[in-house]
Amino acid sequence: MDFITILGLVAATLTTFSFLPQMIKTWQTKSAKDVSYAMLISFNIGVFLWLLYGFYLSALPIILANGTTLFFNIIILYLKIKYR
Amino acid sequence: MDFITILGLVAATLTTFSFLPQMIKTWQTKSAKDVSYAMLISFNIGVFLWLLYGFYLSALPIILANGTTLFFNIIILYLKIKYR
Repeated sequence: MDFITILGLVAATLTTFSFLPQMIKTWQTKSAKDVSYAMLISFNIGVFLWLLYGFYLSALPIILANGTTLFFNIIILYLKIKYR
Repeated sequence: MDFITILGLVAATLTTFSFLPQMIKTWQTKSAKDVSYAMLISFNIGVFLWLLYGFYLSALPIILANGTTLFFNIIILYLKIKYR
């Protein structure tokens, strides 16, 4: 695997799994009042469109990265609504 | 421009500019305690690597989307540190 591909995979892993600690923090503190609704809704719609884009291109990295990111962020949005 | 390209551009615009309302909210409320440090740091490093990836590939959409996302998120991280 060449350097640029590895760079892209490391970048994708970091941006995707960055939302795991946010999800855990929101779940533990039962508070997400400082997290913007506009951010979560716009981000979730955008990531869903990235996922569709990945399916259209049959691009597995785009599908996996955005599928996982969407999973974490839908739960963060759900927790924000639950604990509002 | 074909449908898939437009889909990708809309997705990129939504995920990139989703961080603008978060930045404004943090700036206005002077509070980001519910926003995870681990998320911000991991996300900023990941987006920086995406930016490098875009430069290596000379891919302007990747450079623009990640450059803008990095700008917003570095400010959010700065505000979180400032208002801790």
